[in-house]
Amino acid sequence: VRSGPPFPDTEFAARVARLRQEMAAREIDALMLTAPADIFYVTGFLTRFWESPARSWFVIVPGTGKPVAVIPAIGAELMGGTWIDDIRAWPAPRPDDEGVSLLADALREAVPPAGRIGLPMGPESHLRMPLADFFRLSDALAPRAFVDGSAPLRRAREVKSEAEIACIRRTCHLAGAAFDRVPEIARPGRPLDAVFRDFQALCLAEGADWVSYLAGGAGPGGYSDVISPAPDRPLAPGDLMMLDTGAVRSGYFCDYDRNHAIGHAEDALRRAHDILFAATEAGIAAARPGMNAADLHEIIAQRIEALGGVALGGRLGHGLGTTLTEWPSLQPGDETVLRAGMVLAIEPGLEIAPGRIMVHEENIVLREDGSELLSPRAPAELPVLK
Amino acid sequence: VRSGPPFPDTEFAARVARLRQEMAAREIDALMLTAPADIFYVTGFLTRFWESPARSWFVIVPGTGKPVAVIPAIGAELMGGTWIDDIRAWPAPRPDDEGVSLLADALREAVPPAGRIGLPMGPESHLRMPLADFFRLSDALAPRAFVDGSAPLRRAREVKSEAEIACIRRTCHLAGAAFDRVPEIARPGRPLDAVFRDFQALCLAEGADWVSYLAGGAGPGGYSDVISPAPDRPLAPGDLMMLDTGAVRSGYFCDYDRNHAIGHAEDALRRAHDILFAATEAGIAAARPGMNAADLHEIIAQRIEALGGVALGGRLGHGLGTTLTEWPSLQPGDETVLRAGMVLAIEPGLEIAPGRIMVHEENIVLREDGSELLSPRAPAELPVLK
Repeated sequence: VRSGPPFPDTEFAARVARLRQEMAAREIDALMLTAPADIFYVTGFLTRFWESPARSWFVIVPGTGKPVAVIPAIGAELMGGTWIDDIRAWPAPRPDDEGVSLLADALREAVPPAGRIGLPMGPESHLRMPLADFFRLSDALAPRAFVDGSAPLRRAREVKSEAEIACIRRTCHLAGAAFDRVPEIARPGRPLDAVFRDFQALCLAEGADWVSYLAGGAGPGGYSDVISPAPDRPLAPGDLMMLDTGAVRSGYFCDYDRNHAIGHAEDALRRAHDILFAATEAGIAAARPGMNAADLHEIIAQRIEALGGVALGGRLGHGLGTTLTEWPSLQPGDETVLRAGMVLAIEPGLEIAPGRIMVHEENIVLREDGSELLSPRAPAELPVLK
Repeated sequence: VRSGPPFPDTEFAARVARLRQEMAAREIDALMLTAPADIFYVTGFLTRFWESPARSWFVIVPGTGKPVAVIPAIGAELMGGTWIDDIRAWPAPRPDDEGVSLLADALREAVPPAGRIGLPMGPESHLRMPLADFFRLSDALAPRAFVDGSAPLRRAREVKSEAEIACIRRTCHLAGAAFDRVPEIARPGRPLDAVFRDFQALCLAEGADWVSYLAGGAGPGGYSDVISPAPDRPLAPGDLMMLDTGAVRSGYFCDYDRNHAIGHAEDALRRAHDILFAATEAGIAAARPGMNAADLHEIIAQRIEALGGVALGGRLGHGLGTTLTEWPSLQPGDETVLRAGMVLAIEPGLEIAPGRIMVHEENIVLREDGSELLSPRAPAELPVLK
């Protein structure tokens, strides 16, 4: 049984070819990958076992040939179902040598002594192995140098293939089907934590493999925060409720939200919703290859201000795909040039009153001549749950 | 609204006091924490926003006073609801200075130039910040030394308080209520991926806040793998099906599984189940403070062999709590001395036939005079779903 998304081997070969172009431009002899999304990207290896921090997992992208997997024995069967042929396993956990010697051998084969090993070290990356093991590895491989390998991964992963776009669209649509059913689970008197549980169940019922992210909030005249777990406070008339989900299907995320008024919608809420709907519309209409991330931020923020709103600081959108959020950030200073195939969350937010905010979010993909919606568009008027 | 589990400030103060004992014994002036479970442990800060890799989060445990949070502004409101008073925020993402200068200032206050900063670097730990940022931080703080701070975290986190044990018991029980309802969702002809979706929904219906982990397998006469996502293959008579869940409530995990025969149970499956039930029983009966992890492994493995089974290699159990798996590992070579308050998964597995395995799992807490079950015990006989 092939795990993960239904991609042909040619999909993965094309990804590796793109990585190698970027590696060559930076004189990187091989990439060393440790993070779930990077390993999934080059192999298709998909598991929830990443939740256990006990074991390290490594994939090497050498200058020629297929990637090499250096992984715990418990994953050999699953990795064997991917397009990878060279799978080297150790009986993990083995804290004295958690794959380090096996990995060092594989890197010695791929990288000459004067060579450079690219390791993602930049924004949005983490080294998923014990730091002490990395120091040991680094000593063992000297004089080979570890250099920042973020750029090849970022350049390749940012632009999605049609197969990847189809996966993200599918996830967006199943979440949309769940959002359509919010009236079944949310009404005045229902506690927000019950709504959160039920909404995750709706995502599963509509086809999510799992729900990696659900956040949101509810409060009178707006919510105060968008990253908190749900309290058990019952929804009350006059509340604004927001649900923001990162559901996953075949390893691909959606990341968008929906707002609902509880009982009735006061004018301030309707007006805020109108402004954010228009700002989102402006972002969707303006987004196209060639502009940069900061420019798109500026268009969205200016639309909010032009309509009399107070835009939230920070970013008003970001990439997504095999993680909930990816590069670039739609914010001042992010000069990333947008490219066709990038999948973005357009996420304008505003302050309704001090400590009361509203945030909208939709997912799009950039096409040669503009953008295409992946999420079903939110209703133009703030919906009310009675 | 206080986020996370309903612990009083004294719970967190006691944790920090234990950390400081371990820090003092190792001449560590301050701990620097970056990982969700470590930060949750000392602050109670609970969010699913960790799913986004865009921002770094830092908590410092200095030699005196409360911990200091150095975090993205988007989390200041939520952190403000915990017992932490000193919260320093920056407008993240800000890749040029992703909290590094703010963090360096805070560490300079807590650690003298000749001092030592403890950072978890050992087994089961990851540095959750871009590696390039860590190198920058390290340069900025010289001559202060970063040393392995794993031991204080491990020593403190391994032993759960009564409040933590109550949380884990609650999660175990809600998963048990979901397992009791497996006959509603699994029968011959139902695809395994549908069962996985429905089981997660049952966990939510029974009170899980979210379901961070579900794995398992199904196959004729046993499954071949325990970490794969579910295929869409329909369950067939003669299959053995296993579901293994890491549901979460108030930030605390369970981690145990249940096996079911589909249609009917062949003798080989019944026998394997009997052996694993007995081996689990032996582990529960033997587990007590003072013995070491390898000894407990030996008792479980020997029981399997004595009954004619072939025990799986690797570990046959592990700690759990605020992550799906924690130290120690029940395996040869792990000399960790077990202590009262440790919560463990007892997880014997055996090979039924080549490539066909069965794995049992229960969760216990060690008490002064033995162990106490936290998960409702599996039925002694392999249940059959018709």
